[in-house]
Amino acid sequence: MNTSLDEILTHLRSTAVERDARGGHAAAEKALLRDAGLLRLSIPRACGGDELSWQEIYATVRKVAAVDSALGHVLAFHHLQVATVLIYGKPEQISRLLSHTIEHQCWWGNGMNPRDRRLAAQRTADGLQLDGVKSFCSGTVGSHFMTLSAVFDAAPRQLLAVVPSDQAGVRILDDWDPIGQRQTDSNSVSFDRVAVAERDILLWPEQEQTPFHTLRNCLAQLVLTNLYLGIAEGAFAEARTYAHTQARPWLASSAEHAVDDLFTQNRFGEMHVHLAGARALAERAAEHVDRAFVRGPALTAAERAEVAVAVAESKILAHRAGLFVSQELFDVTGARGTKASLGFDRFWRNVRTHTLHDPLDYKLNMLGRWSLKGEAPDPQLYA
Amino acid sequence: MNTSLDEILTHLRSTAVERDARGGHAAAEKALLRDAGLLRLSIPRACGGDELSWQEIYATVRKVAAVDSALGHVLAFHHLQVATVLIYGKPEQISRLLSHTIEHQCWWGNGMNPRDRRLAAQRTADGLQLDGVKSFCSGTVGSHFMTLSAVFDAAPRQLLAVVPSDQAGVRILDDWDPIGQRQTDSNSVSFDRVAVAERDILLWPEQEQTPFHTLRNCLAQLVLTNLYLGIAEGAFAEARTYAHTQARPWLASSAEHAVDDLFTQNRFGEMHVHLAGARALAERAAEHVDRAFVRGPALTAAERAEVAVAVAESKILAHRAGLFVSQELFDVTGARGTKASLGFDRFWRNVRTHTLHDPLDYKLNMLGRWSLKGEAPDPQLYA
Amino acid sequence: MNTSLDEILTHLRSTAVERDARGGHAAAEKALLRDAGLLRLSIPRACGGDELSWQEIYATVRKVAAVDSALGHVLAFHHLQVATVLIYGKPEQISRLLSHTIEHQCWWGNGMNPRDRRLAAQRTADGLQLDGVKSFCSGTVGSHFMTLSAVFDAAPRQLLAVVPSDQAGVRILDDWDPIGQRQTDSNSVSFDRVAVAERDILLWPEQEQTPFHTLRNCLAQLVLTNLYLGIAEGAFAEARTYAHTQARPWLASSAEHAVDDLFTQNRFGEMHVHLAGARALAERAAEHVDRAFVRGPALTAAERAEVAVAVAESKILAHRAGLFVSQELFDVTGARGTKASLGFDRFWRNVRTHTLHDPLDYKLNMLGRWSLKGEAPDPQLYA
Amino acid sequence: MNTSLDEILTHLRSTAVERDARGGHAAAEKALLRDAGLLRLSIPRACGGDELSWQEIYATVRKVAAVDSALGHVLAFHHLQVATVLIYGKPEQISRLLSHTIEHQCWWGNGMNPRDRRLAAQRTADGLQLDGVKSFCSGTVGSHFMTLSAVFDAAPRQLLAVVPSDQAGVRILDDWDPIGQRQTDSNSVSFDRVAVAERDILLWPEQEQTPFHTLRNCLAQLVLTNLYLGIAEGAFAEARTYAHTQARPWLASSAEHAVDDLFTQNRFGEMHVHLAGARALAERAAEHVDRAFVRGPALTAAERAEVAVAVAESKILAHRAGLFVSQELFDVTGARGTKASLGFDRFWRNVRTHTLHDPLDYKLNMLGRWSLKGEAPDPQLYA
Repeated sequence: MNTSLDEILTHLRSTAVERDARGGHAAAEKALLRDAGLLRLSIPRACGGDELSWQEIYATVRKVAAVDSALGHVLAFHHLQVATVLIYGKPEQISRLLSHTIEHQCWWGNGMNPRDRRLAAQRTADGLQLDGVKSFCSGTVGSHFMTLSAVFDAAPRQLLAVVPSDQAGVRILDDWDPIGQRQTDSNSVSFDRVAVAERDILLWPEQEQTPFHTLRNCLAQLVLTNLYLGIAEGAFAEARTYAHTQARPWLASSAEHAVDDLFTQNRFGEMHVHLAGARALAERAAEHVDRAFVRGPALTAAERAEVAVAVAESKILAHRAGLFVSQELFDVTGARGTKASLGFDRFWRNVRTHTLHDPLDYKLNMLGRWSLKGEAPDPQLYA
Repeated sequence: MNTSLDEILTHLRSTAVERDARGGHAAAEKALLRDAGLLRLSIPRACGGDELSWQEIYATVRKVAAVDSALGHVLAFHHLQVATVLIYGKPEQISRLLSHTIEHQCWWGNGMNPRDRRLAAQRTADGLQLDGVKSFCSGTVGSHFMTLSAVFDAAPRQLLAVVPSDQAGVRILDDWDPIGQRQTDSNSVSFDRVAVAERDILLWPEQEQTPFHTLRNCLAQLVLTNLYLGIAEGAFAEARTYAHTQARPWLASSAEHAVDDLFTQNRFGEMHVHLAGARALAERAAEHVDRAFVRGPALTAAERAEVAVAVAESKILAHRAGLFVSQELFDVTGARGTKASLGFDRFWRNVRTHTLHDPLDYKLNMLGRWSLKGEAPDPQLYA
Repeated sequence: MNTSLDEILTHLRSTAVERDARGGHAAAEKALLRDAGLLRLSIPRACGGDELSWQEIYATVRKVAAVDSALGHVLAFHHLQVATVLIYGKPEQISRLLSHTIEHQCWWGNGMNPRDRRLAAQRTADGLQLDGVKSFCSGTVGSHFMTLSAVFDAAPRQLLAVVPSDQAGVRILDDWDPIGQRQTDSNSVSFDRVAVAERDILLWPEQEQTPFHTLRNCLAQLVLTNLYLGIAEGAFAEARTYAHTQARPWLASSAEHAVDDLFTQNRFGEMHVHLAGARALAERAAEHVDRAFVRGPALTAAERAEVAVAVAESKILAHRAGLFVSQELFDVTGARGTKASLGFDRFWRNVRTHTLHDPLDYKLNMLGRWSLKGEAPDPQLYA
Repeated sequence: MNTSLDEILTHLRSTAVERDARGGHAAAEKALLRDAGLLRLSIPRACGGDELSWQEIYATVRKVAAVDSALGHVLAFHHLQVATVLIYGKPEQISRLLSHTIEHQCWWGNGMNPRDRRLAAQRTADGLQLDGVKSFCSGTVGSHFMTLSAVFDAAPRQLLAVVPSDQAGVRILDDWDPIGQRQTDSNSVSFDRVAVAERDILLWPEQEQTPFHTLRNCLAQLVLTNLYLGIAEGAFAEARTYAHTQARPWLASSAEHAVDDLFTQNRFGEMHVHLAGARALAERAAEHVDRAFVRGPALTAAERAEVAVAVAESKILAHRAGLFVSQELFDVTGARGTKASLGFDRFWRNVRTHTLHDPLDYKLNMLGRWSLKGEAPDPQLYA
């Protein structure tokens, strides 16, 4: 599969600039990822999947994100929804839904945005019915299943469920037109009397939410870390190639080639250091996640807190590395690196867009409370 | 004129997002600037102009740049070419060219890029002839005159001249498609046996280049300062408006309105401080420039060095304020500020593109040599 | 006087390392400052003083601070207390106290720390009586007068008064032993049944506090700006001298002399830029203060707010320039610059100590509220 | 031993402020470290030592450095000299010298400063003789052995040898009086006709220097990483304790306790993130070192380069974490944290002194060349 992954990466990179300009849905590229077996990574062997570790899955996500962070996003969110089933699902649900996923090579989309409480569920004769809208539903276009959260009985905590994306009444809106991460299909989805079978409910509002359940947040946040980091690595790779092949030393430089200019070298050194720190924390966090994931329902709140902290640390360094490298890229290319056809601005637009998922200030605050007062991160707050 | 400038600013702002997406030439908007009398600002009263101080001209440029930095660029480069005539021109040239400029409401474009030595001049029976290409010729589309530099007699220093933009053989190429500053018309221009009259030569390579002559570089660099600063001020203004009208406090915030969130307030405080420092240096540098400009040919090398240093200081703070505020803008809007229709990314793309004009590292180095060793900035090196 | 100021600066610099190590009171150096006439700068000509502008006074403070920021502090605080009399005093008080100050070459000390409410005033038969303690009373040792604030009638706002420092019952404690600003004599002062004459009351708690009154805060904050900036300038000067006379290029450098090393040059460039920004804002703020000071009681709240904002901006840039340059100093000297006998760490210790006067975070917050919401700085909060 | 290490740490912390002020030799504290068995950590079991991994040794060094970075330095440099014997020594030398070290509980000092070429060796009838001076000889006071480098036969590479510190003619000068790391005994040592036996020569200039040999540099640089990081961790711990026990919220804060102030919390969050990144890279680098160390002479140049890069990355993050946290410490204590008796400035003085060992700019340059051009770090340049 590695050869084929490399081929896919080459293809994604060669079309990324054009597709970023176009926006919309990347049907052909999603098909490539699917055909290469990348949808199976997180699915248990018992269901026919590869059951890779999260370390391995995140490493793949990061490689994809380096050449196309929107596709990396879609791939990662697929696995995040698979993880949601693994975490919240009963054995029957896991077996049924994920075997079906393998058999039909299904993509999963995300309808879990907890801040959006406009989607409501109510009981009907033979199950539930959904009405309303959910925003930021990454990966739903072209998906077979969506996970979702919906207000039920006016409870503060939302109900979690799975719905086939082609269920009657589900309509994916065409309202995703951002400055970056343009092909993540993060549209809103409207629900008009959409039936949900009881067997597809993952969690009722009144059910206890265990530390293991809220590990889902850590998995989600670590997706962000790896997307940011992938973008930074992609920008670095472009900077490196350009410096060798096209950049020219400045008038006042004593170097003959751009790569021999001392200041250019130090800018690469600085980018490298940013990447090294973020990468080490991302890998450390993934080890934490893997250890916690296999603990399953036995995971304690204290153990979960350690994971959340490791993930948050990695997210902050990756956030900063992403913004830094994607801006710095231009300092080492010089003015000619701003040609639109090179599309070098997509790295910054992608990472700038995605780093707004939840605010840095409150992430730092959470780490401050932890390190100063020993307060565990609050799972309600994207931690 | 002030009312009318405000109206123009409102119009430019309301169309900036759409025109940034489109790129190309902003004929209608340039006509508005012209009709408002903005082409006269730098022209001597003796020629029918307003003869404003550079402080006033830069202040106007900055206001335009805050809503549309490409148009601000085109306007500033017009005045920079007028200044080139004032600095290098003989009284006859000044009188003839600038009176004509007033009479016909002419735009000036820039063909002075010193790094590009592909344009050559040679003597003919009745003057000179130009052949070759010049890149980054901001403002040439739709202009009446261009200043230009061309290699002559293989001399290291180039000859400076004025050419009507519609002279036979002048062809403005369509090769300007960058990620930012998209409507500055900074295309390449090709010259095919273009005749230049001797009376339009501003400086021969063998003529002495005085400190006053090289003050042109300071004027040009201070244009950049004010464009960067205008962009930063524009981004700040958008952030402020959005924070009041659309932003929502984060989940974990105790504030009811985004503008009352402590971290949001401190981000505004930080942006304000960046702007305050850059603004103070920009204004101080403009005072220096005005004092030096009126000194004329009496300007000494030592006086010129002080101006160049003040300009460089201001350029570095404005460079950083521009990048900082245009990135920070998003931290105070949050994720919904990334909608493409808002076009908030144009500030970063514009300032990122333009801050690559000449490298920060070497600007710092120049200030280091000055402050450590007393070495005057080298006019050959964009100082 | 200029020659003699230069001589004093040379003397202060040559003894600063030794006196910093020793701490305590700099009686001889204060005598030098006094004998050079530096106590007269702010005193009206009508009282026999020099009545210089605040721009001039701050410039002198900064020069002294560059070689010895503790002595710069003591000098500045003298003038701040003189300003307190000018701002709050009735004509009779101004005339009597400041003529006496000129006649007897008096030093003034500061007992105004508003956060310390342990000093209480109560009525007696023939005036008031003070009991309690006041902390951080800069410049009181060896002074003739102190201004002070004291709780009266349990009012939230404190009474302001002047007391001769040798008044019976006044005792200056020996409790000032900090890591920096060691010779500012900022001890606590205890008051044991200290009599205050009614004619020495500057403001009663129930009297209206006008915008002009609270301009005193702006003057005080701008003292800090200039002390920080003086420290930064002093550190820069030492770095420059050391780089020329003692520093050696690193093994891997291609330069023969340390001053020709590109990275060293860029570090100087960076220090220079920090200084340039802070200096421009400091000078701009002093102009604001001068304009406001001559407005006197006519000063409006809106005008006062503009001054406070300009001062706060300058204080933040000076704060950062001070910390940056005093730390960076060592990067350009290298390891041998850490010899204790050079005393180069005193710059960082001095500025680190003094930049804690009031927190940067809340200063930024104040500027955020101002720039985002138009909220005027609250004079109760060190603004 | 853990209990006893904790006791030692408590003792070191309680006396660190006083000993820092005093400077000089910490005989009693070195005796404590020795008696706790801390000199045995790196010595092979075959010689009677503990043969811990470098990960474990660095972890111990870091704990000591957190409370007293001078003692941490002395301990680490002891193990670095032991490593020098292990790396360069023949089996007989290793066995003889390290068994002796265990038996007599010997301290080792460092005379290897490669930049200082003032120490010369020449042949005598029965071995060699040393004459000259060596600077920065950390840990030599009170040591039994020193490793040293000396110019021999005018070769560019120096000869390496071991000399008993009490050998006739060895004189430890009293010239170590820096602003930080005051008790590291990094004096100069003079050598007056000091005899060296041939069996104590570790490497002749003409002998090949293998990648394994130059791994010594990596071990040395990673000592610095862990000292910087220990200092940062120590400063953080003091800040945390102070915030809980003594700090007060600022006037304008809505918090009742300093630890509940949002800005204070975010400063802790920021410090935590700096520490987390540096710690992850330090631990990763130690794993690299351990893997390389056990490879022994089989270590290839390519493998060695990977180690050197990992170490350099960690050193840069630790350098910055050290300076950042030791300065930031004061922002969370406020003005009262500057009392000299608290000694909080020692963290900054210690890390500022030690981070000048070799310049950050050239370390970044090395990483730039590596990441941009694939150039392996040059072992001659402290890599």
